[in-house]
Amino acid sequence: MRSAPSLQLDPDRLLPTDPTRRDIARRLHGQVESLPIISPHGHVPAGWLAHDLPFGDPTSLLITPDHYVNRLLHSQGVSLATLGVGQGPLDADASRAAFRALCENWSAYRGTPVRYWLQMQFVDLFGIDVRPSAETADAIYDQIAATLLTPEFRPRALFERFKVEVLATTDDPCDDLADHAFLADDPTWTGRVLPTFRPDKYLEVGVAGWVEHADRLQEVSGVDTAELSGFIDALQARRDHFRAHGAVSADHSHADVQAEKLPTEEAAELYRLARKGSLEPVEALALRRHLLWEMARMSSEDGLVMTLHPGVSRNHHGPSHAAFGADVGADIPLPGDFTRALKPLLQDFGTNPGFQLVLFTLDETTLSREIAPLAGFYPSVWVGAPWWFMDAPEAILRHRSAVTETAGFSKTSGFIDDTRAFCSIPSRHDMARRLDATYLSGLVADGRLDEDEAAETLVEIVSVNPRKAFRL
Amino acid sequence: MRSAPSLQLDPDRLLPTDPTRRDIARRLHGQVESLPIISPHGHVPAGWLAHDLPFGDPTSLLITPDHYVNRLLHSQGVSLATLGVGQGPLDADASRAAFRALCENWSAYRGTPVRYWLQMQFVDLFGIDVRPSAETADAIYDQIAATLLTPEFRPRALFERFKVEVLATTDDPCDDLADHAFLADDPTWTGRVLPTFRPDKYLEVGVAGWVEHADRLQEVSGVDTAELSGFIDALQARRDHFRAHGAVSADHSHADVQAEKLPTEEAAELYRLARKGSLEPVEALALRRHLLWEMARMSSEDGLVMTLHPGVSRNHHGPSHAAFGADVGADIPLPGDFTRALKPLLQDFGTNPGFQLVLFTLDETTLSREIAPLAGFYPSVWVGAPWWFMDAPEAILRHRSAVTETAGFSKTSGFIDDTRAFCSIPSRHDMARRLDATYLSGLVADGRLDEDEAAETLVEIVSVNPRKAFRL
Amino acid sequence: MRSAPSLQLDPDRLLPTDPTRRDIARRLHGQVESLPIISPHGHVPAGWLAHDLPFGDPTSLLITPDHYVNRLLHSQGVSLATLGVGQGPLDADASRAAFRALCENWSAYRGTPVRYWLQMQFVDLFGIDVRPSAETADAIYDQIAATLLTPEFRPRALFERFKVEVLATTDDPCDDLADHAFLADDPTWTGRVLPTFRPDKYLEVGVAGWVEHADRLQEVSGVDTAELSGFIDALQARRDHFRAHGAVSADHSHADVQAEKLPTEEAAELYRLARKGSLEPVEALALRRHLLWEMARMSSEDGLVMTLHPGVSRNHHGPSHAAFGADVGADIPLPGDFTRALKPLLQDFGTNPGFQLVLFTLDETTLSREIAPLAGFYPSVWVGAPWWFMDAPEAILRHRSAVTETAGFSKTSGFIDDTRAFCSIPSRHDMARRLDATYLSGLVADGRLDEDEAAETLVEIVSVNPRKAFRL
Repeated sequence: MRSAPSLQLDPDRLLPTDPTRRDIARRLHGQVESLPIISPHGHVPAGWLAHDLPFGDPTSLLITPDHYVNRLLHSQGVSLATLGVGQGPLDADASRAAFRALCENWSAYRGTPVRYWLQMQFVDLFGIDVRPSAETADAIYDQIAATLLTPEFRPRALFERFKVEVLATTDDPCDDLADHAFLADDPTWTGRVLPTFRPDKYLEVGVAGWVEHADRLQEVSGVDTAELSGFIDALQARRDHFRAHGAVSADHSHADVQAEKLPTEEAAELYRLARKGSLEPVEALALRRHLLWEMARMSSEDGLVMTLHPGVSRNHHGPSHAAFGADVGADIPLPGDFTRALKPLLQDFGTNPGFQLVLFTLDETTLSREIAPLAGFYPSVWVGAPWWFMDAPEAILRHRSAVTETAGFSKTSGFIDDTRAFCSIPSRHDMARRLDATYLSGLVADGRLDEDEAAETLVEIVSVNPRKAFRL
Repeated sequence: MRSAPSLQLDPDRLLPTDPTRRDIARRLHGQVESLPIISPHGHVPAGWLAHDLPFGDPTSLLITPDHYVNRLLHSQGVSLATLGVGQGPLDADASRAAFRALCENWSAYRGTPVRYWLQMQFVDLFGIDVRPSAETADAIYDQIAATLLTPEFRPRALFERFKVEVLATTDDPCDDLADHAFLADDPTWTGRVLPTFRPDKYLEVGVAGWVEHADRLQEVSGVDTAELSGFIDALQARRDHFRAHGAVSADHSHADVQAEKLPTEEAAELYRLARKGSLEPVEALALRRHLLWEMARMSSEDGLVMTLHPGVSRNHHGPSHAAFGADVGADIPLPGDFTRALKPLLQDFGTNPGFQLVLFTLDETTLSREIAPLAGFYPSVWVGAPWWFMDAPEAILRHRSAVTETAGFSKTSGFIDDTRAFCSIPSRHDMARRLDATYLSGLVADGRLDEDEAAETLVEIVSVNPRKAFRL
Repeated sequence: MRSAPSLQLDPDRLLPTDPTRRDIARRLHGQVESLPIISPHGHVPAGWLAHDLPFGDPTSLLITPDHYVNRLLHSQGVSLATLGVGQGPLDADASRAAFRALCENWSAYRGTPVRYWLQMQFVDLFGIDVRPSAETADAIYDQIAATLLTPEFRPRALFERFKVEVLATTDDPCDDLADHAFLADDPTWTGRVLPTFRPDKYLEVGVAGWVEHADRLQEVSGVDTAELSGFIDALQARRDHFRAHGAVSADHSHADVQAEKLPTEEAAELYRLARKGSLEPVEALALRRHLLWEMARMSSEDGLVMTLHPGVSRNHHGPSHAAFGADVGADIPLPGDFTRALKPLLQDFGTNPGFQLVLFTLDETTLSREIAPLAGFYPSVWVGAPWWFMDAPEAILRHRSAVTETAGFSKTSGFIDDTRAFCSIPSRHDMARRLDATYLSGLVADGRLDEDEAAETLVEIVSVNPRKAFRL
């Protein structure tokens, strides 16, 4: 192997180039660089921490489950099968080959946040010091694989090393939350791991399989779901179960965010049709929106913060969905609609002190036009962090620029990593903290804010806003 | 009171941080810093200047009537009632308490233009030198209150101090414009204060109360409005009345900008139904669009510049509307549509030399996609200034960036403050002039424009474009 | 004539102002500054190069045919007739007068890319050293006119001087491509000039005149087009003819990008109605979408890259269209839709290795929301270059910023000039190369990319990506 280019982390990465702004940004960033991580929404399984088993090979940890990584390889012509997507675990040779595909296509990630996250993990976590490439792939693979066998790389050790103060998981309403209970009961464990109530499939009354979900809800809750009132009670029972295990929020991702109450008898009748599987599409839509309204009502009563993640065409490529399942990188965003769609919901709960709503979008045009104006009026509405494709350096700065002038900083949720890639969590928060320091340095440098105000704001973004937005 | 942080104005505020660009921007800004203010669209009452009464207390001047200020306090959980919104005047204690709420929530305005406007008023106008906070609220309140009692703070004195050359008000077509006439007849008054014809509610034939508006129009104009032809004549008579009092423009804000002629008899028949209150919604829409077309026709004949401010969901929160009235900060933008919607109007008047149209948007996606392309072809179309939520530093720069490359500078209206907050007018124009200097400095610094061209352009933006766009 | 301001080119134009970034950008730009031009999509007539006739007067070369130039003059109140649009050639006096109109309105182009392109042509190509104005217009006109008479300004000499390696034209499917054949057979000619298959009007079955186009297709192809199957065969025959003359792509511009297969018999029946001119609008839309689907199928089989240029309201101003024809600067963009509209097409061909699709948009909101996510998953999808109004410095940077973080660099097509203004080609590529250097310098300066990676990326954008995207 010829001498490979080195892999390093610039200590000033993502800070402004202009010397005046860079100095300000460095000082601001220094205030938050080592603060604990609050992760109020994400997809790491609680079981990893409950059982504290060692991670497997580099590919099953870093590639196979991460659609951010896979989609770009697929766009380069690499088959998802090669990467182990939607299959049982890869054998040793296939795992090494998948990792080689990543390293050979390292240049495809230039300019993307995946490059940033992986580079920071490689350098900071695994001590890699050469640039990934066909030539260096095997050596990097071996070094990561060896590192993963050490006790310092068990999930609990990493949780502590990452300084994670709170970590929320995302869970099915019928989940017994045994892993969460296990952690709560374990005297050797002091971390805070919370479940999140995610009832999407129970509300999608028009989707095949819904009747089985409603049956299962009855079975788990012990509440008869033959009628709508029972179904609602069963959902409330499961929310109570989640709250008893520490949940602070309920997360919802449907095609749109409309939530609108139907007259009681009409809703009950549509529900009966749903149970018979004989809803028309327009009726299914109306009932789903009614159920989302019920979720908002419950949130206003039980205090679970409502979060909305709308606007995605899921599984855009049918053949890939059939072959490899969901979450393979083929979810494509759609135009957003908040002003019109949220009007019924906000009539009813917009100024209700029990209600709190965090809005996420993949359509950045809605930020300055709809979401920031809503959050700048309604006490209940919060602007969520840049989500998914928007969780990237320039998009994060555009997000602040689109939101701040209309809603300020105090109604923004703070950073949310929303990831199932456990090892990437510190790099994601690192990116967000640096960029908020960069954004704030601009306000100081051109006289819009005093530096002590900017410093206070940055600390609040990291440590206060997520607690308020998610009632932690 | 412990020593409070100071409140100051950076003389280079909003100019670029990079030294090369900052030097250029300083020189450019120096050319326009002290030019008179032209304000061709706004909401200051003419009566303030006609009667020249002293302003009341700080709250009734700076908080209660300003929805920019109130909405953010409301988003923090402060009740609009506390701020005096939609009520009679607050008593002395309540007024002081409302001002304290503003100061206690000073941090909520960080990064917003409201912070900039208030800070500049506090420092430049009222001589405040401490940062607003719970501790400093009372002292600031007292200082402003005392200042407002001095003769230098009467409206006419401020008008002169602000170097306002032209100020346009916004007026109901049935207004007798007595205050404007009073000013015109007052030999001690030399300022130019113009009315603006704003007929929205007379065109909204589908809204409850329209019949009364049509009756009132008949009464004021002396023209029988039983039939459409009379209604049109009555509107023309009121436009003539406005023009006789110096009006140069007619302003329109409906849900959309579509203006389309109906066949004469169809329009007449719909009008008869409207007078009976029996229009279907789709008919009401068609008739409103026809009436807007008639407004365009009149503009092409009488020369009043037509301005369009579309795309807002007014009074988004019904309960707040019911309790506090309109204009309480709950108007939320919607996606815009200009290319399709303006097509019928521009077929008929787009190249008519008598017709001039200024377009405003709250959906910044329409700037590069629709508005700039229209203004870069049609001689009649002008790009309006960044409006409302877009009247903020980064949004203003995005606006120039979205518009300039397709429509240049010469078809942009120059800055429009559109405010009812009289004391904020200088700070709003100050912000715009600095940002245009900043934008132009970028063109000079990277070799796209010579500095003498940039200087000429900036002077034109401030002093020439508004005169041309509004036929002043 | 008093001493006129000079006209010069800043050697660092469009590079960043910040010294750190400028140094990096200069080094990057130096790598590509003199690389050959690849122009895989444009509108220069092949006949210019086949016959190598001298260009005419300055106006007929630089103004009359260029709607980028004309639209802004029209927006200033200059009649299109004055500029020779849609008329026979202007006489000598009128040509000079049109050129004077351009120079008198030179300030209208400030901040636009037209200013950049013209300035670079004036200085670099024609040796002009004074700023255009009423005073300098005649002298500049004379200097350009004299230059155009020299042998160095014949089309073939310019082609060589510009270092054009590949130039694609855009051609009607019924074109015999005689000029392309002539060039291929000419032993003195070594350039590569390729036709592009542009079948729009043959697919627009609902537009008046379509039947004549279908008849003409039968005549030229020798295939009976009475039935749909024959019509499809005739189109394939013409694609084969184009491929035999070097074509690598087929270009499509309809109102939307939806392409969806109809059942065979339904399509055949709609086609029969189309031939009779009795299609309903909704049927015409369905058949056009079916035909576009057939084009995609053929692309997947014959390998012609499919390019889509949707979303324009063509000939927005009817009276101008009637008086001056198409392409007079009155085409206004509309909102885009790719995620939903492309779903049927991508189900069928999205992962087909024979299929390659390049997407262009005039609605920049679709870049981060739809186009980049599609290109970052589907191996067949490429992000096209900033098109038309987006082909401007700040829009180009926004384009990279919107696309890169989601799709990287490797799925972007490289720059496409898309112009009929032959002499502007070097200035357009110059602009794009400088801006890509500027964009990449930002990634290096803030630690996201090593400089050697940025340099390699820039060379690939200029020399590799267009070859891959267009299968050159």
